[in-house]
Formats: sequence, C-alpha cells, structure tokens
Amino acid sequence: MKLYLDIASTTEIHQEVINSMNESYHLFYGNPSSVHSVGYEANKRIESARATLLKSANAKNHYLIFTSGGTESNNLAVLGVTNRHQKQTSHFLCSEIEHPSVIRVYDHLKHEKADVSYIPVTKQGVIDLKALHDMVSSNTHIISVMHVNNETGIVQPVKEIIDLVKKKSPKTLVHVDGVQAFGKINVDLVNVNADFYSISAHKIGGPRGVGALIVKNGVNLSPIMWGGGQENNVRSGTENTPGIIGFEKATLLRINNTAEHLVKIWEIRKELIEHIMSRLEGITMIEHDLSDYQFPGILTISIDNVKSEVILRMLSDNGIYISAGSACSSRKTTASHVLKAMKLNNAVMDGALRISFNETMTYDQITYFVQSLEQHVNQMRRMMKR
Amino acid sequence: MKLYLDIASTTEIHQEVINSMNESYHLFYGNPSSVHSVGYEANKRIESARATLLKSANAKNHYLIFTSGGTESNNLAVLGVTNRHQKQTSHFLCSEIEHPSVIRVYDHLKHEKADVSYIPVTKQGVIDLKALHDMVSSNTHIISVMHVNNETGIVQPVKEIIDLVKKKSPKTLVHVDGVQAFGKINVDLVNVNADFYSISAHKIGGPRGVGALIVKNGVNLSPIMWGGGQENNVRSGTENTPGIIGFEKATLLRINNTAEHLVKIWEIRKELIEHIMSRLEGITMIEHDLSDYQFPGILTISIDNVKSEVILRMLSDNGIYISAGSACSSRKTTASHVLKAMKLNNAVMDGALRISFNETMTYDQITYFVQSLEQHVNQMRRMMKR
Repeated sequence: MKLYLDIASTTEIHQEVINSMNESYHLFYGNPSSVHSVGYEANKRIESARATLLKSANAKNHYLIFTSGGTESNNLAVLGVTNRHQKQTSHFLCSEIEHPSVIRVYDHLKHEKADVSYIPVTKQGVIDLKALHDMVSSNTHIISVMHVNNETGIVQPVKEIIDLVKKKSPKTLVHVDGVQAFGKINVDLVNVNADFYSISAHKIGGPRGVGALIVKNGVNLSPIMWGGGQENNVRSGTENTPGIIGFEKATLLRINNTAEHLVKIWEIRKELIEHIMSRLEGITMIEHDLSDYQFPGILTISIDNVKSEVILRMLSDNGIYISAGSACSSRKTTASHVLKAMKLNNAVMDGALRISFNETMTYDQITYFVQSLEQHVNQMRRMMKR
Repeated sequence: MKLYLDIASTTEIHQEVINSMNESYHLFYGNPSSVHSVGYEANKRIESARATLLKSANAKNHYLIFTSGGTESNNLAVLGVTNRHQKQTSHFLCSEIEHPSVIRVYDHLKHEKADVSYIPVTKQGVIDLKALHDMVSSNTHIISVMHVNNETGIVQPVKEIIDLVKKKSPKTLVHVDGVQAFGKINVDLVNVNADFYSISAHKIGGPRGVGALIVKNGVNLSPIMWGGGQENNVRSGTENTPGIIGFEKATLLRINNTAEHLVKIWEIRKELIEHIMSRLEGITMIEHDLSDYQFPGILTISIDNVKSEVILRMLSDNGIYISAGSACSSRKTTASHVLKAMKLNNAVMDGALRISFNETMTYDQITYFVQSLEQHVNQMRRMMKR
C-alpha cells in the first residue's frame, strides 16, 4: 500500500485539474497581453478565474494578483509595501511561528537594519494576544500572521488579531498567510478583513508554480520584479494561463464542500489518535485543546526517545510518506522554529512527526499506518535497549 | 484557416511536452524538499532536468537556478548581485533595446538613484560597440544585453560584447537575456562566457511559469525572494517539478535540430519577403543586412500609411495572429522603444508589424497570410483616400 500523508507539504494534483489544464493548452494559448483575439480570449479566461478565486475567499473589498506561488505572495505582501524610508524608520512585526517564506523576509529586513520584532506564541501555539497588544504601535508598518500553521495545524485567531491591531494602530497593514487555510477551512475576507491574504494552488490539488495575493482595495503595492507590467503593473511576466485555470479548478473542487470535508477530517483525526494511543506508549500530542484552534488535517505527534527522521525514513521504505515538520526548509533537519516557539522540550521536538491528510483517508489506511508506525517504533526501541 | 504567427510572444505548448508533464504528475508529485522517497525521487528528476538544460546551452562552467520565467530570471540576475552599497557607488549599463523585464529593472535602479546608462544601438539595431567601449569602466558593476531581440530578431554579437567588456573591466558582470535565443539559435556558453544567461520555457513550446537563470561558477547571487531555501538558497518556493520536466522536454525537442530548423526558417522568411514585396507596395523591411545578425524567425515589416494596430485587428478577425511589436507590455500601444532606439521615423514605427514563426510554417500558410495582408492593406488605403 502506498500512503501519502504529507499533503501539507504538497498534494498530488487532482485529475480534474489536469483535465482542465490540458483543455486550456489549446483554447487559451495566446499571450494574454496580445491585442489579437487569441490573446484576448486568454485574458478573459484569466479574469474569470480571478473572479472565482476572489469569490471563494468571499473577498468583496479586495483585488487579486497572480504570483508564482505562496513564497512569492508572502514576499510581495511584505516587500511590496516597504521602501527604503520605511525600512529605516518603521517597525515590523511577525509571529515566531510563521512559514520560512514570511519569517525569512522579516529576517532579511532585520539584516537590512530595520526594526523587526517577533511575536511570541502561547504553549498551545497561538499568537500571544497580550504580547501582540504591547508590541503594536502607531509606528508598526506591517504585521504578518498565518491563518493555519503548517507544522501543527493550529488555527490563529486572525479576526481577533486584525481587530486588535487596527484598534491600536489603524494604519498598520496586516498580512495573513493563508496558504494552509484556503480551500481547507472557511476563508471569509469580509469577516477577516486583512490587507493581504496569500494563497497557493499546489496545497489543494492544484498545479505547482501558481499562487495569488489578495489585496484590500485602496492598498497600493509596488512590484518586487519589474517588466512588462502585467497584473496591474504589480507582477510582470507572461501570465501562466493554464496554471491559473488549474488553480481555479482545484479551488472549485474544494470550496463548496469545506464544512462537509472538515467533519470527515475530524472523524479521521479522532480515529487516528485513538489507534495511535491504544497501540503505542510514550506519545505526546501536539495540538490545541479547543477544536476552534485546530485544523484537523494536520496531526502532529511526538514519540518519546525515537528520532523523527529515523521513523520517517523507515515508513518511507514501507511506502508511507510523512514529514518531520516543515518540508519547506530544503532537507534541513534542524529543530523546528515553530515547536521551539511553543517551548516544547528538546526530546519532544526530536521525536515530532507531522501526519497530514484530507477527507479521502480510509479506515484501512488508518489501520495500516498505525500498524507500521507501531512496528517501527517498537523495533527502534528494542534496538536502543540493547 | 487559423494562423498563429506570434510565437515570439508565446508558443502553443507541444503535445509531447504535455504528455511528459501528465506523466510526471503521478510519478514525481512529492515535494522535492521532503526527506521521504517520493520527495527524493522528485528531487532526483529535477537534478536530471537541470543537467539537460545546462548541457543544451553547452554550459560547462555554469550552474542553473530554476525560476518562474524569463522576467524573474532577468530580475534575479541584476538585482541578485546588487546591494544597497553598489546601488550608491557603482555604475550600471544596459542597452536601449532590452526587453521590459531588463530595461525596467535598470529604470528601477535609476529611480533609486543608482548611476545607470543605456547603451545606444546602430540604425541596424545592433549594440554600438564603440559607444559601449566608451561607457564601460572599472566601476561598471553589471551590464545587460540581449542575445536575440524580441521585436526585430536582430542578433547581438554577445561574444564580442563580453570580450570587449571583460578586457576593459574584468570584474564587470555580464548578463545576457537569452529568452528569444535559447532553443532557436545555437547557444554555447563555453564560447559566449556570460556571467548570467536567462532562458524561458514558454517561448519554445514549453509550459508557462518556468524559466531559469544560468550562472557562472563562482558568481554569487543573493535571493530576491526569501523562504525555504530551495535552489541552493537562491530561489525559495516549492519546486515546479512538472514545469521543469516540461521545460526539459521542450528543450530536447528543439535543441538537436537547431541548425536544420534555421535553414528551413530562412527559406520561409525569404519566401514570405518575396511574396510580400511582389504583392504590396510601400513596405519597409526592418532587418539586418547580414544574416549573422538576423534571426530569421522574426520578420518585422512596416506598412506605409497604415497603423499596425488596425491591420493586426483585421487579421485577427480573419484568424491570423501577429503582433505590433512586443506583446509583453500589457496591451500598451505606445511606440516601441526598440524601433525608437534604431531611430526609425514615426511613420515606420506606426506601421510596424512583427510576424514570428518557426520551421513548421507551410507554403500555403505563407500564401494565405500575404493574401490576407494585401487585402486588408488595400482596403485601408482605399478608405483613407476617400
């Protein structure tokens, strides 16, 4: 049995997405910037996909810029509003548990002598609202927080955060990294009135190399790349029409069933936890106590006295694919900055495994996964006892 | 008859490229940064595509960074070696006929108070080597020149340019925008020893949203986007495995037949010119006298007293798709900066049409195109006489 339980890292593209892209290659192959009708048709198709995506996030007061993915969207949000003067005079804030494509942008600003602070999180992995309140000032230029954490699935109270920030400093821009949320939990930008919201296609069965940044009307962005002036002069480069069509399709396949899928994913999560707890000892669950703060499709556990990397390689040999935390850091195996920020002890961090799945996971797969896990953990523990 | 003669703008993706991508979706869907075997296999596949592309440019002393396309590659080359200090103290040079994704990066540097100069071209559209020689100094940090111009097909003497620059200032970095050259004419980076060479997939039957920057060994690049540290810490973001595989396939489909294709494309060009000249009066050919300086697959002509945009819309209604110059400037119809740099008069610029094609264009298509062109031009000229 092949069992891919690493969908927070990337998903296998959906067959219907492939079909829609394959169709688009011949219908919309023109350069959307061309004046002739082949270009015009491609352009029209992109605009309709743009409208679909905005609607899917209930974004009634926002516009959308297509990018090459979540990393670019996150970079564009922060760097696209930050000029030299702001770097020298303003204050920048991001949480300690952001994805590398956010936190390293702030690290870069700090390296360039900007005044950057990192917001701590509680032991449960939620942004510390009291600390945030103390840190925000009228000089805070932009703050980045994520919607769903990619390593723990912990959901941040983004509405509360935005309300808190805007109350204390109405001009501070708020960027929400929604890459792990969009298409998975309800995203409602009328309710969560972020200035920027980043999304990505390949996390939800869409193609690689396509993402978007949703921007509040009236908020101006400068490009981070210069060229032909596509995407309203914000993102130059020939538009990736098939990728954009694939992104739209992947979104449509998920967006209307989010609530229904979530119910199913919660059931799978509970089943998984029950199986694991009944068969293995010395397991720490890294999750939030309250279900409102937990996206169920990311289950992070830690196995006492067993290094996560060893287990995941053993599972991989068995055809089961999970992650030791974020896979986004290019094969690095240093301790997770997210788990560190949650002040977990080293032993828990060393044994942390991320299992990520969606509503299609079956009871047989759950059983097979837990059996394999048990087998390898016991084997490792026996070896270490000798 | 549908006749797409705008392949310098973008190409219809090759069916074999689609097939290889479709296959890859299920074989190499893992995140190449993941430690498990699905990730490892994807990573291995990317490395093999990287080697193919380097070999296709005969790049023995270079490495390659995958990007989201030509625009990003060009931005990365220039901005990736330019820090704040260099902006304040160094000199920057690019030619007057660069693609917007190059020239606007230099415009941006100029806007940020850097010392930027633009190298003029001769009336025939070739970079003025004497002027270049006078402009380069030991303080010149980087210079960008293109290999094949996207509006005229004029081939720049990139080897001579690099030799000239390096002789006068060995430390000056030379960036060659090869987006319209790679896969179309012979690209040999042992001979043309550029520090940077930009390439793009969708100009040669490959997918949108994929490009690369080839970089000389020993030349260090800083990222222009921060994140997970993929692509040797230079270009973060989950790798676009299917896109990279498609880029490799598109390259392989063209690279071994470049010389043979060129012979065929020259024949088509000559046929096209003969037909046009025999049936239409008041035509100016915008081309170089010497065939070494002309890529034959881009034919730029100007029709006296007929606005190019009118003709291209009429042709479009007939199912014939050409361009009025660069399509990359997002539907702008201002005069071409390339033709301006060649000091063509306004009348010639107003009537300029770019016909771009490859070796597959048939005799029937040539006839049909010229007949349609003749018909519309005569119609317009009759209308204007009234």
